[in-house]
Amino acid sequence: MGVIHRRKNDGADWEWEGVDVYSYNSNEATKQVLIGHADGAHNFEVRYFTIPPRGFSSMDRHAHDHGVMIVHGRSRVQLGDKFEEIGPGDVVYIPCYEPHQFENLTDEPMTFLCIIPPKPLDVDPALKTMTAEAPAVTG
Amino acid sequence: MGVIHRRKNDGADWEWEGVDVYSYNSNEATKQVLIGHADGAHNFEVRYFTIPPRGFSSMDRHAHDHGVMIVHGRSRVQLGDKFEEIGPGDVVYIPCYEPHQFENLTDEPMTFLCIIPPKPLDVDPALKTMTAEAPAVTG
Repeated sequence: MGVIHRRKNDGADWEWEGVDVYSYNSNEATKQVLIGHADGAHNFEVRYFTIPPRGFSSMDRHAHDHGVMIVHGRSRVQLGDKFEEIGPGDVVYIPCYEPHQFENLTDEPMTFLCIIPPKPLDVDPALKTMTAEAPAVTG
Repeated sequence: MGVIHRRKNDGADWEWEGVDVYSYNSNEATKQVLIGHADGAHNFEVRYFTIPPRGFSSMDRHAHDHGVMIVHGRSRVQLGDKFEEIGPGDVVYIPCYEPHQFENLTDEPMTFLCIIPPKPLDVDPALKTMTAEAPAVTG
């Protein structure tokens, strides 16, 4: 059966019915898994990240690639040794092992969708939502 | 190297730098592949569909699953034998082989993002952009 997660609120700090909000790294960023293993989706994962005003995502370099679309705000994105400024609706493809980081250039939350290939079932935080406190996770 | 496709315009008929617009079924719907094989992305595909006022996506049932987020407008989505009304920011997961169709309930374009696992390289229309006229494709 199909699964629907309805958006619950306006502004930039979107949340969805049936989707948990996790803390993400150390600067009040958050991560939500909108579609993933918990929905029966084992071929890709769709996540939503919120970066606080003037904050950063973690500086990452890893085996999985990313597809990103900025939803709210403006960001300076680092791709390898290059920096580009992007805004709502702009799309970024980050290949495997490319160093990358998103900076929020504004005084409001900056948010983006992020698509990845599926993570192994045993490390998917969306399957741990029944624990009392979800651990911080990396992108 | 990472790839950026910047959004070129406002309104609902979003287009992006470096992304071609294809006709999609017979009612003036369009499809754009925002991230796919042409960008070096072989693990997932991110597409953007525009459904004209009061129009429909094709009634589909196929082996690949979908992740969808409505971007503009309101839609009645059919999932199997059920119908649900959804709007901007709402997320839908459509499992493999679930019959599905999106209806635009408004007098403006209705648009959505759609994530799928990668299609085989030899049937990816994004690799045929140098042909004089791209064929209509199905979701």
